[in-house]
Formats: sequence, C-alpha cells, structure tokens
Amino acid sequence: MIDRNMQKLGEERSAIRELFEYGNALKRTLGEDTVFDFSIGNPSAPTPECVRETAIALLREMPPELLHGYTSAPGCEEARAAVAEELSKMSQIRVPSRLIYMTCGASASLAIALMALVTAGEEVVVPAPYFPEYAVFVREAGGTLVPVPTDPRFHLDFDALDRAIGKNTAAVLVNSPNNPTGAVYSEEEMRRLGLLLEKKSGERGAPVYLLADEPYRELSFSGKVTPPFSVYSNTVVLYSYSKALSLAGERIGYLAVSPRMKEGEAVFSALAGAARRFGYVCAPALFQRIVARCTGMHADFSVYEENRALLLKHFRGMGYEFSEPQGAFYLFAKCPSLPSDFFERAKKKGVLVVPSESFGIEGYFRLSYCVPTERIQGSIPRFEALLKEANGKIE
Amino acid sequence: MIDRNMQKLGEERSAIRELFEYGNALKRTLGEDTVFDFSIGNPSAPTPECVRETAIALLREMPPELLHGYTSAPGCEEARAAVAEELSKMSQIRVPSRLIYMTCGASASLAIALMALVTAGEEVVVPAPYFPEYAVFVREAGGTLVPVPTDPRFHLDFDALDRAIGKNTAAVLVNSPNNPTGAVYSEEEMRRLGLLLEKKSGERGAPVYLLADEPYRELSFSGKVTPPFSVYSNTVVLYSYSKALSLAGERIGYLAVSPRMKEGEAVFSALAGAARRFGYVCAPALFQRIVARCTGMHADFSVYEENRALLLKHFRGMGYEFSEPQGAFYLFAKCPSLPSDFFERAKKKGVLVVPSESFGIEGYFRLSYCVPTERIQGSIPRFEALLKEANGKIE
Repeated sequence: MIDRNMQKLGEERSAIRELFEYGNALKRTLGEDTVFDFSIGNPSAPTPECVRETAIALLREMPPELLHGYTSAPGCEEARAAVAEELSKMSQIRVPSRLIYMTCGASASLAIALMALVTAGEEVVVPAPYFPEYAVFVREAGGTLVPVPTDPRFHLDFDALDRAIGKNTAAVLVNSPNNPTGAVYSEEEMRRLGLLLEKKSGERGAPVYLLADEPYRELSFSGKVTPPFSVYSNTVVLYSYSKALSLAGERIGYLAVSPRMKEGEAVFSALAGAARRFGYVCAPALFQRIVARCTGMHADFSVYEENRALLLKHFRGMGYEFSEPQGAFYLFAKCPSLPSDFFERAKKKGVLVVPSESFGIEGYFRLSYCVPTERIQGSIPRFEALLKEANGKIE
Repeated sequence: MIDRNMQKLGEERSAIRELFEYGNALKRTLGEDTVFDFSIGNPSAPTPECVRETAIALLREMPPELLHGYTSAPGCEEARAAVAEELSKMSQIRVPSRLIYMTCGASASLAIALMALVTAGEEVVVPAPYFPEYAVFVREAGGTLVPVPTDPRFHLDFDALDRAIGKNTAAVLVNSPNNPTGAVYSEEEMRRLGLLLEKKSGERGAPVYLLADEPYRELSFSGKVTPPFSVYSNTVVLYSYSKALSLAGERIGYLAVSPRMKEGEAVFSALAGAARRFGYVCAPALFQRIVARCTGMHADFSVYEENRALLLKHFRGMGYEFSEPQGAFYLFAKCPSLPSDFFERAKKKGVLVVPSESFGIEGYFRLSYCVPTERIQGSIPRFEALLKEANGKIE
C-alpha cells in the first residue's frame, strides 16, 4: 500500500522547491519581468566553456556505446583519479582514487553518507541554520538531527558544540561556505573543530565522523577554504560540481574518504552499500568524464561578486540587518517585520525569498543571488518598500 | 557508526557487477582477447545518431547554465510531455504528463517505486527467475520478496501466482521482456494477469499494484510488447532508456502512473517523496532534454539479432538446454555440470557468465549477448569444450 510517510514527503516537498515551482508558474501567468525569484540556488554564472568543449570532443571522439555505457559503481577511473589528484594537492595528503566514490550530486552524497554512517538512534550534530534537506536525510537514516546554535556571525560556537556532541553522536555535519548564511569557517575554526572531534571520539570510544559538505568550496570571498582532510582523520568530504561548474541539473559530485581514517575501507564499503540500496548504479557517465577533464576549473563567478556588492551596498543603505556573507551565493537577512507578514507581502510584490524556518532558525530570509544582475536591480525598490511598510512608513 | 548492513551490501556488491569488475581486471592483466565477458547487460548496439546530434545541438543552442540547471524534481516539461505522448500512443489511453516522473534509470525507478508502495511487512510477488537487485530494493523498503515459479518456458504460472498473491501482497513486479530469461509475456498472458490482480485487489480491499519494469520494451523478437496500462488500472510503469538508446551509464528513465489508477495522485506523491528521501533531486538535465527529442527512436538492434541467431544455432548444435529467448539480450541456459564446477571451469577459460543462483533459481547460467559478435564467435569453442568436459568427453 502507499507509504504515507513517502506521500507526505512528496506532498510537502521542500519549501525551496515549492517557491521555485510557484515562481515558475507565476512567470508563465504574469510574465518573466514581474517575478523576482531569489528562491533557489540554481547557478547563473555561465558553465565554463571547457564543459561544452569537452562534451563535444567526447561525443565526437568516443564510440557512443562506450561513452554512454555503465561505469564501475564508484565511477570511471579517469574521474576518480582526477578527483584524487585535486584533493591531494589541496590538502597536501596523498588521497588514493580507491577512496573516491562518484555520486549523482550533493543530495545523493548526503543521503548516502548519512545512511552509511548513522545507525538507528544515533545523533547528527549540525550547526544551525542549515540546509533543510539535512533533516530529511538524517531522519530517513534513522537518526536524529541535533541543531546547534552558531555565533551572531553564524560561525561555530564551540561551547555549544562541546555540549551537544556526546556518546550518541555519529557525526558532525558542516557546510562551509555555508548555505544559507554565507559563513566561511576560518582555518583556526576548522582546526579547533578537528581537535574537539578527536577529543569527543576518544571519550566515545568510536569515531565521531566529520561530514564536510562542500559544494561551495570554490565560492569564497575571504580566501581559500581549509581542506577538511588536513584537520581531522575521520572525515568524509561531500562534493558536487553543481556550483563550481554550474552543472546543478546534471547531478554529478563525489564522496571522498580521508586516507587517514582507520576504518576507511569499511566506511567506503558502507557508502557503496548505501548507494546501491538507493538505486544509484553509477554517476552519469558523460559528466563523469567531463568533470575528470574540467576538475580544477570553475565558472566565472564575477556575476556573483557583482551581485553581492550591489546587494550589500543597497541592503546596508536601506537598513536591513544581516551578517556579511563571505562565501556561497546567499544573503541571509533579518525579516524587518513578523515573518508571516513579511513573506506574504514579499510574495505579493513578486519577490520570492525563502523563510528561514526550514533552515532551523526563525526570523530571517534567504536570498539566493545567483541570478541575473538586473533581477537584483529590479528588486531593490521592492525590498525598500517592504522595509518601509514594515517600519510603518507607508507613503 | 558504520551501518554494518550497508557495509555488507557494499562489500558483497551484486554478483553481476562483481564479475564485470573481475573481467575488467582480467583484461588489464591478460589482454582484451583472452576474456569472453558475457556478464553485464551493457548495451553494445551503437547509441543512435540522434543522441549525439541532439546533444551537440543543445550544447550549441541553449545557454549552458539553463541547459545544465536544475529541472523541476519530476523532470522538465519537454521530457514529461514526450513520454506522456509516447505512452498515450502505445496504450491508447490518454496519459497526462503530470503522472510522469523522470528518474535516474531503472534501478532508481525500482528503488523509488518499491519504497513508495511497499510498507513494512508487506510482500512483493515476483515471477522467478528475476533481476537480483529486486531483492535488495524490496528488503530495503521493509518488504519481503516472494518468488513465484514460472512455467518451463519461463512464462507466468497462474496457479502459482494465484496461490502466492494474498492479503499481504503490496505489488506484483513483472519484467517483460525478461532479464534473465528473455521471455516476453503475450497479450493474453498480460490480460489474464490484469484480471487476476483485479480479483485479488477486490479480495484484499486495497490495490495490488502492478509494477511493470520495462527497460527491454523495444527489444522483442516476437512482436510488440503489450502495454501494461491497457490491462490493469493500478499499474506503474518503470522505464529506462539504457537499452533502447544504449545509454546505460547516463542514468535516465522514468516512472509513469496509470491515469486509470484511483489513487494516482497519492501514488505519484509517494514516488516523489521516495525520490526525495534517496537524494534524487532531478534526473540528469541534458539527458532529459535528449530523450525528450529521441523518444520513439531506438538503437539499431541488428547486432543483437545477429548474436542471438549465432548463439541459438551453436547452442542448439552443441546440445545446451535452454528456452529460446523472445526478447531482451540474454540467453538463459542449463549448466551442463554442477554449477560450482561449471562456473569455475568457465572462469578459467576466461568465459564470464552469471550463475543463476542470484536470479532466484539454481542450475542455469545467464549469458548477456549485447557484445561484439566476434566475442560470441571466439567463445563458441570454449563453450563446446565446457560441454564436452561436463559430459566427461575430455579429448
């Protein structure tokens, strides 16, 4: 019979996808230019030319039934080797390709890693706010998501983490650069996290895994992102090319197990098992080969830089409250009036931003600025009106 | 901590993938021409030219960040509409595109459908032999797979089905053209199945779903495959373009809910929920658009026809026992000696065929003939030697 939990999960969808679909419907009815959709993190920076060139070259050069045939479940050797090489360079630790598992993108990586490393009744500690689907994947793996508050700039609060991580903690799941806040954890912050997890693993007598969800790795405005492999041995990196190469719809990413992990082979097998359980036979073959040849490149992010600068200037000028994002392509700001009122009024003006409730925190909104710059420009008067209305200064 | 069930699932892998990897390793050591790998159903018919042409046209015409961006979770409108139109034509029932869910291929479709439609403790009735991963997906959905014997030609045994389907049966899962046997169910057989399921649903007071796993739909040597929508209302079709378009590695397929299903909307939501739970954000975007424009086409299957004719001639001549396959690209034959002995000897000769044990039946082997014809030709003396050795006529 119909699994009612699955039905509910399908009906509720995510708040973000819901807004995205609403925006699409609105555009079809009212026209493109009346809707200011900042709901979804669908990259707007043009996919780098190397993707098109590599795709066309592969389509021309390789026999199609080989190009499009099954790869090994963990991926083709070319892709795994390219990823291993990049991670090795980045972290200054030799990462062998046998610890790389190519996946169908970030959500697949998350669902697989949590299913593999969380058993019934265990907890996953997550700094809040956090990507809403974390809650779905943790719950479906049989675990409990334990949100931990962050500091006012959305950086790690080590006292809160220390209290939250206990005997029952299977993993800590971090996302830096962060969705939704744009926070990028500093090297010192990452090192401290590594040390805390060493200590907690010792107390627990079993590893507390660090799951580093890094789809925004290349999108940092405050210097290089600290490689998680360099700070802690029991680390699994979750990566997606969605943002770096503007390939969100192609579903291509990977899981990488630290070569310093004691039980690394067993963890890798558990990842393979979880992928199998979910019906992931292999990551899309053509894009495995494309990313193998485009690893290390990224899209021209100047549109995000421009959008960010524009937003920061105007939002500061208008008086919105927010912590300056250092990475990713989100602005996370305080609602100037009661959230229910604010989101209703925003939607009426065709301004689609995501309520922070689903990110595990109240009273904020997330604006994805991976959009054409004109959309930002066009929305400014509307954001201004929303703020004025909130302040009772309706003119 | 590591989920030991997932670890086990990852370590055991499937018998088929295991052989495939073994074959690849062997080829690297001993050279391509010493290994006769018939283990995996990796299509050898060239991907039709329309795939390459459409891919290159899309890569040239569409802004890349749109082409490669997220689609709606159930798929882009173009793909869903194309599928709906094809199914409507095929089944003479108007299928709306809102009941089409684009997926990452057949295994994804299976994992999702079983998760959505099987609740803990329910049973899924499957004619044996069957595709081994069925057992994994049914178990992981909390259900029990109930294998039902087929007749000597591997067609449906209605007495056995009648006995097996009960109050606890969530679904019957059929696969015609069949992997591993090549059986194609006749129209009369499908109609009888529909009537039986109507009766059983009535007795149960709830639908017994028909899950029609149809990746080999276009690969029938005995006329058109009967559209499952035309025989029973509570049907979900599971499809993959892997075989029709030789795109096995690209992970593109769909789920289609019958428009005649009473609870169709709820079932569709449950499918969406299960896809979400597993981390399937959307099916690969480029290939959604490609199949939208190539639906209705298929690869040139003449290599399969030639291979099949060659195999049937030689296997008959040699005296192997088998039922003539009417579809797919498998030959399912009796082991001429004890299976353990036969498979050991076959592997030693570099002949890789899949033991039938994992298909839920003892004493047979599956040979995938979706390979270059020369591989079949080269293997014939070895199959002959295997048979002679089995008969004690070692010369």
